[in-house]
Amino acid sequence: MFEQAERLMLDVCAESLGQTIEDIQRAIRIPGVSKTGDRLDEMARWVGDYLAELGAAPIFHEGKIAPIVEAVATSGTSRGRLLFYTLYDVQPADPAEWASPPFEGRIVETQGRRHLIGRGAFNSKGPLVGFLSVVKLFRERGIPLPVDIHFVIEGEEEVGSPSLPGFILDNKQRLDACDGALIPYFGTDAAGRTVIRLGFNGLGFIELSVSGGDWGGPARQPVHSLHGGWLASPAWELVRALASLRSENGEFVCDGLETPDWWGADEDRMIAEAASILDAGTILSELGAERFRVEGDLARQFEYLLRKPTLNINAMSSGIVPDAGQPATQMPREARAFLDIRFVPGMDPHATIRRIREHLDRRGFKHVDMTVRGAYPGSRCDRRHPAVAAIETACRQHSGQVALLPFHSGAAPLYLFSEVAGLPYAFGGLGYGGKSHAPDEFLDVDSMVDYMRSMVSFLFRFAERL
Amino acid sequence: MFEQAERLMLDVCAESLGQTIEDIQRAIRIPGVSKTGDRLDEMARWVGDYLAELGAAPIFHEGKIAPIVEAVATSGTSRGRLLFYTLYDVQPADPAEWASPPFEGRIVETQGRRHLIGRGAFNSKGPLVGFLSVVKLFRERGIPLPVDIHFVIEGEEEVGSPSLPGFILDNKQRLDACDGALIPYFGTDAAGRTVIRLGFNGLGFIELSVSGGDWGGPARQPVHSLHGGWLASPAWELVRALASLRSENGEFVCDGLETPDWWGADEDRMIAEAASILDAGTILSELGAERFRVEGDLARQFEYLLRKPTLNINAMSSGIVPDAGQPATQMPREARAFLDIRFVPGMDPHATIRRIREHLDRRGFKHVDMTVRGAYPGSRCDRRHPAVAAIETACRQHSGQVALLPFHSGAAPLYLFSEVAGLPYAFGGLGYGGKSHAPDEFLDVDSMVDYMRSMVSFLFRFAERL
Repeated sequence: MFEQAERLMLDVCAESLGQTIEDIQRAIRIPGVSKTGDRLDEMARWVGDYLAELGAAPIFHEGKIAPIVEAVATSGTSRGRLLFYTLYDVQPADPAEWASPPFEGRIVETQGRRHLIGRGAFNSKGPLVGFLSVVKLFRERGIPLPVDIHFVIEGEEEVGSPSLPGFILDNKQRLDACDGALIPYFGTDAAGRTVIRLGFNGLGFIELSVSGGDWGGPARQPVHSLHGGWLASPAWELVRALASLRSENGEFVCDGLETPDWWGADEDRMIAEAASILDAGTILSELGAERFRVEGDLARQFEYLLRKPTLNINAMSSGIVPDAGQPATQMPREARAFLDIRFVPGMDPHATIRRIREHLDRRGFKHVDMTVRGAYPGSRCDRRHPAVAAIETACRQHSGQVALLPFHSGAAPLYLFSEVAGLPYAFGGLGYGGKSHAPDEFLDVDSMVDYMRSMVSFLFRFAERL
Repeated sequence: MFEQAERLMLDVCAESLGQTIEDIQRAIRIPGVSKTGDRLDEMARWVGDYLAELGAAPIFHEGKIAPIVEAVATSGTSRGRLLFYTLYDVQPADPAEWASPPFEGRIVETQGRRHLIGRGAFNSKGPLVGFLSVVKLFRERGIPLPVDIHFVIEGEEEVGSPSLPGFILDNKQRLDACDGALIPYFGTDAAGRTVIRLGFNGLGFIELSVSGGDWGGPARQPVHSLHGGWLASPAWELVRALASLRSENGEFVCDGLETPDWWGADEDRMIAEAASILDAGTILSELGAERFRVEGDLARQFEYLLRKPTLNINAMSSGIVPDAGQPATQMPREARAFLDIRFVPGMDPHATIRRIREHLDRRGFKHVDMTVRGAYPGSRCDRRHPAVAAIETACRQHSGQVALLPFHSGAAPLYLFSEVAGLPYAFGGLGYGGKSHAPDEFLDVDSMVDYMRSMVSFLFRFAERL
């Protein structure tokens, strides 16, 4: 029903690529680094000014370190409303590590392709400004937006979104007017294949540590290791406690662990399709790995990646490892392991963490201290929800190589939208970029046309389904 | 048969305490730090000069970093010969950490007792110079030594005695003329209780490490921990490999581990006697521990300490533990653990290390690298051997609180004497001191009279038994 308007807008995307790229470059030139505060408020104002130009008057909600910018662009129809969420802050960048300056947005030819290099090009100023420029194009061409767009753009994502949960709880009623959410992402890889994830893992941080004390072990300082026969060793206790949480085949195990079993034929079809457009060799090579943990075809590998929760050792330490030579022959007084848990969607983080504590206690590891530093659940959105169906259809409309995965093994607190605000979300889009959080972060200039087109079609497909 | 001579010499010990203490102070004022080389050669010459004064012409055998000083003091009789072995080098000392300067040898009143403070006061310039001064007293009083004394005094003990094995092998024939060995030690504790150990643990150093590579895991750099489901983790592999070497009750286990079982009624009697003069509370308090690894009376604790080999984690590390906050959510590319193994006397170190490798391989841990950094066996000397019997009798002669232990859970390569040179050794003596390798190392001035007397009587008791 939007055919003509959509066709016009899709044409406009190619014509206006230059203008969109310039807008992204302008955004990259304002660092907006949330970890350091570098021109963070200026970046917020820049976003607000852009929204104002779209006729969406911005409200700046004070955050812990940077404002959340909220605005609504109306379509003039009452068809429905989309929540658009992303971030305007970026990770720090050390210019010494970059081939091009991180805050200039230079365009560099790389193997016959034009790459816009800059911090945030991929994560997430490229997708943010690319979408804003699409909205601007609707306005410039006098084509009504297919739906109202309710913007929520935060500046603290790279430091863990400390103000976002409160914002969503406080403004739940206003957000209730939305029919679904979009979190844009450059989902295409170097070979032109696009994967859309229907959700995210949850994430928890726990520290397990053992220090000598009332229970035994060296309680005041390290002791000579000659006492290993009659004194308990914190490092050995930690090793045994950790090992009890890992099965022989390398999976996270815990007494009474409840892993939701929603995985079914739909998910099997998704991973089979993903395996058919992706290949194991490229994935391993990009990871810098020679082989997967368990033998099996690529579909099975996606199942290993996704179907079960994982408990990951991020770092561990006991005693002092010298730069060279042997450490002292001592029994260290303390041993620590920092772990993350990736909760599959549907798992209760706090119940899981409680199970770990009970598991340790039951096995005689009451002296293993567990400190929990934050935990949030995963989330998963129904493929048939208007927003989710719209992103899939829109991407397939402009690319022959699109596959879905049940969710992303990376974690993001998007349960705030799907569970807290009750707004299922679409996550994805066409467009190619990379090196998130790393030097020489980039977006592929020409793929921006695909991104913009996928956003245009997304808006129409979403509106149609409401 | 030596009654009169011994009685005279025992009286002389008290009279000459001041002179002996001065000699020890002179030795402490020459650092002789083998780790840094600080005045190490000067210390060797000082020992040589002292021996020369005793009529024992020194030979300086070039060592890797310091000479081994060899000399023989003859008794004028042909009754027998004692090998006397100890060290003239010391550990470094940072004056900032000491209440008294480490290289001055000041005498300080502490709770009504006079302590001579200085690096080496306890380990081992006090016992060395105390013994030399006893030999000097024999000479000054015109009393023949009960036996010839063959001195072997090295200056590399604190860096692992790199030249000693070669010296003993090269000079085995000359050392064969000895009838037994003495390694002097201040064996008395603050409460006046003396323990004599009839041997030593052996010691091995191994590093277990896992790095991503052909077998799996991140082969080039750390990867994001979101890949924990499908990539193997070096840290987890290390944890599981380590855990396979520790039993549920906290003992070193390994497939096919051969632990000699010479422990019998004699050893049970020894630990019962040791438990009767020592007390668990004092031992724990000195260790800075609240309880032993396993419940049980003190005799049982000595059994836990001694009867079985131990595998000790000295340090371990994977990833980067930040000073504050969380580490990155990554899977580190490498994990390392530094361990020492304490071999009970009679165990074959190399066979044991081979067993560990086989144990790991059998359990699928071929990708766990094992680096062995030196290993030597334990040793144990028959209580009825003339030297061993002499040190026990001599100590009991001057103290009512003496007990034996089957061996020391600390390690020392004294198998070089008992096994390589074929010379069973006595290890011990009266005398009280402490803080070996630590700031404010000390000897108790008045206990030096007991030490000297135990040495005098040792020489007579040894001679009687030949």
